Amino acid sequence: MSAVPETVDLLLTARWIIPVQPASQVLEDHALVVHQGRILQVLPRDEALQRFTPEQHLDLPEHVLIPGLINTHGHAAMSLLRGFGDDLPLMTWLNDYVWPAESRFVDERFIADGTQLAMAEMLRTGTTFFSDMYYFPEVVAEVAQHQGMRAQVCFPVLDFPTNWGSGPDEYLRKGLALRDQLRHSELIQVAFGPHAPYTISDGPLSQIATLAEQTGAAVQIHLHETAHEVTEAVQNTGLRPIRRLSELGLLTPTTQCVHMTQLDDNDIALLKESGAHVLHCPESNMKLASGQCPVHKLLEAGINVALGTDGAASNNDLDMFGEMRTAALLAKSVSGNAAAVSAHQALAMATINGAKALGREQDLGSLEAGKLADIVAVDLGDPLVQPVYDPASHLVYSTNSRQVSHSWIGGQAQLVDGKLKRIDLQELHGRIAQWQQQIQQAKNSG
Amino acid sequence: MSAVPETVDLLLTARWIIPVQPASQVLEDHALVVHQGRILQVLPRDEALQRFTPEQHLDLPEHVLIPGLINTHGHAAMSLLRGFGDDLPLMTWLNDYVWPAESRFVDERFIADGTQLAMAEMLRTGTTFFSDMYYFPEVVAEVAQHQGMRAQVCFPVLDFPTNWGSGPDEYLRKGLALRDQLRHSELIQVAFGPHAPYTISDGPLSQIATLAEQTGAAVQIHLHETAHEVTEAVQNTGLRPIRRLSELGLLTPTTQCVHMTQLDDNDIALLKESGAHVLHCPESNMKLASGQCPVHKLLEAGINVALGTDGAASNNDLDMFGEMRTAALLAKSVSGNAAAVSAHQALAMATINGAKALGREQDLGSLEAGKLADIVAVDLGDPLVQPVYDPASHLVYSTNSRQVSHSWIGGQAQLVDGKLKRIDLQELHGRIAQWQQQIQQAKNSG
Repeated sequence: MSAVPETVDLLLTARWIIPVQPASQVLEDHALVVHQGRILQVLPRDEALQRFTPEQHLDLPEHVLIPGLINTHGHAAMSLLRGFGDDLPLMTWLNDYVWPAESRFVDERFIADGTQLAMAEMLRTGTTFFSDMYYFPEVVAEVAQHQGMRAQVCFPVLDFPTNWGSGPDEYLRKGLALRDQLRHSELIQVAFGPHAPYTISDGPLSQIATLAEQTGAAVQIHLHETAHEVTEAVQNTGLRPIRRLSELGLLTPTTQCVHMTQLDDNDIALLKESGAHVLHCPESNMKLASGQCPVHKLLEAGINVALGTDGAASNNDLDMFGEMRTAALLAKSVSGNAAAVSAHQALAMATINGAKALGREQDLGSLEAGKLADIVAVDLGDPLVQPVYDPASHLVYSTNSRQVSHSWIGGQAQLVDGKLKRIDLQELHGRIAQWQQQIQQAKNSG
Repeated sequence: MSAVPETVDLLLTARWIIPVQPASQVLEDHALVVHQGRILQVLPRDEALQRFTPEQHLDLPEHVLIPGLINTHGHAAMSLLRGFGDDLPLMTWLNDYVWPAESRFVDERFIADGTQLAMAEMLRTGTTFFSDMYYFPEVVAEVAQHQGMRAQVCFPVLDFPTNWGSGPDEYLRKGLALRDQLRHSELIQVAFGPHAPYTISDGPLSQIATLAEQTGAAVQIHLHETAHEVTEAVQNTGLRPIRRLSELGLLTPTTQCVHMTQLDDNDIALLKESGAHVLHCPESNMKLASGQCPVHKLLEAGINVALGTDGAASNNDLDMFGEMRTAALLAKSVSGNAAAVSAHQALAMATINGAKALGREQDLGSLEAGKLADIVAVDLGDPLVQPVYDPASHLVYSTNSRQVSHSWIGGQAQLVDGKLKRIDLQELHGRIAQWQQQIQQAKNSG
């Protein structure tokens, strides 16, 4: 070991660090050393100050550092439809509000503006890596890349035409071309996004299974979202949807199953055996009255469960702090056990489990030497949320997402003292206001 | 009508006003006129500007005005135990954490500091009227009065001794003396707070029934919080707790039943017949895995359901915006109906229903001419929460409680531009830190 202090890009000293791995650890008065976009080391503050000469040293005396949050499921541009028809049965909401608006308005510009709005909200509230499943994925990828935000972009595949394409062949062709184009991207990964078992027939699903195996790309799919979906599938095909996917070769360690509110013991055994991941969206499931994912049983079975907000149209925000809290509270309520999904478990679901689900646990999801420097600081110094006996409990049960003060993606600052570094909010606000006016007018006249 | 403009204390003009009564109304570009602590009128902005000359005119161009939120159930000073032992089964939490800390630390100073912390958080997040049930209610009353905050103070009654008194006789004597002392208070009302059916025997409960009838004071009681409570009561007394209360004369239109997660059809019929109120605390019920209050059935039956946060030790905040959201989401999830508890209904539960439950619907709970000027303004202009199609939906599903910008109680400003007018947060922070240190040390040393 050299006696000369090593020069590094960034040194963060903080009151607490919760690295998430090792599990349930809370480090006090430690430092995090960042160099060339990665975490060089996590070590005691005094030792860090002796050993390193940072280009920048930021001391965060009332803060806790955590891994950047990973929002594993959403439809970013649907933020433009936030609060556009609430408290309605699912089919009324879709038929009378969402689908007409989508069919009329969804184009490149809608996606670009809506995605930027969603990214602004996510970055402000501690998310550094999100997964998206929506039309014009090439626009989502471009906007995220331009912003410096990490994203998994799932290109949609359905049997029927949409504003983005004519059907399965075109969706697959466009999606694979996008994947090819972005194969060297540091920020963006492209995955298959077959919408749901009830919107795609066996042919395209088999094709996706083959292509996914050939390319190594992940597959994200809405699955067992409602009881109706499962009942209808059994009537139509004789199989529960998860069994049908399994038989088509689509249930693998790179499959991401979204929602999963209807699961019997056989489904859980099948999931476990397959190594597939569950993306739990508790607030959307509650708001749409879809059912309750049995998270406690999945965790007991050793199945990986990550968290997502779903789109802002069915949530109605993209706040992963709220989602962690709801996930912990709902699991206790559903299981009847106050110990189900602890604060540390909820935090793991929003970080390392998300990284595992999206196939990035080597690089993301915890604050460990060698991983990418996706880091979030949360200020727990607000007098109104005192006392702080346990920062993990605070993050999950008491934190207002506006307490997020800083974030970095690959070592690049995205949020500093609560201000977004790379988005002009005033200008964005103007564009969003125009969309709102158009969408509202179309609804009123239609 | 005089042609000379009338001089009034305060004129508020706002983008939206949601008066809550009439139900589901959203007024655009209206004004609220406040004079001598009461609402003089709600009328169109232009008309208001012509007819009135205000001492102060505040224009809130991106804001929605709503009635001050009413938090109908809590234990304010328990904010000092926020996050002190989470994710534990109820009895472990009580035996190993809460009760030892209470027995060692609860005194006048603990109550004064803890209650001030709770009031600061509640005022910051839009609550103007809260109900409290905890020891040393005379201190709670004094702190609230000094702060200018509206409160119902429920003095505890239990069979056993606590730091506040030796048993039922002393609790009743002290409580009634406090009620007598405060009978002319504009801000504070004193109610009976028998803790729960399983901590008080028939004698004191009958005594409370008689005294409540004589004095007209309300009664608040934890009731049917868990399945265990009901099962055990049936074993011990042959009666479900609500039936026992009814037979003892304690189920009346001035009874406030807290929690009520275990209700069969007979219980609901009994409630309806009695005119008693339900105080629903969804986050506490979820966190402690107590069960789910069937709010949709209660509302269908025409029973008044109001909202409470419970204490910060089992929530872990006192944020009524979060509580509205959880109430709406949970009702949809429990009933399987996405239309159950709409945004407007959740807002009514947090305002007018609370006023009804606490016996104050003549004066509070809606923005109507003649009512007390307890008013909250919420800024919906933040670019990150755009677009705003429906401000009611926004308040319940998308609002971060830090968007609360202003509040008034009886026309007196409590919060201005997000800053508390009458609490020194820095000084409070210092006192809270001392409590934290003492409580933590006592726990660590066994």
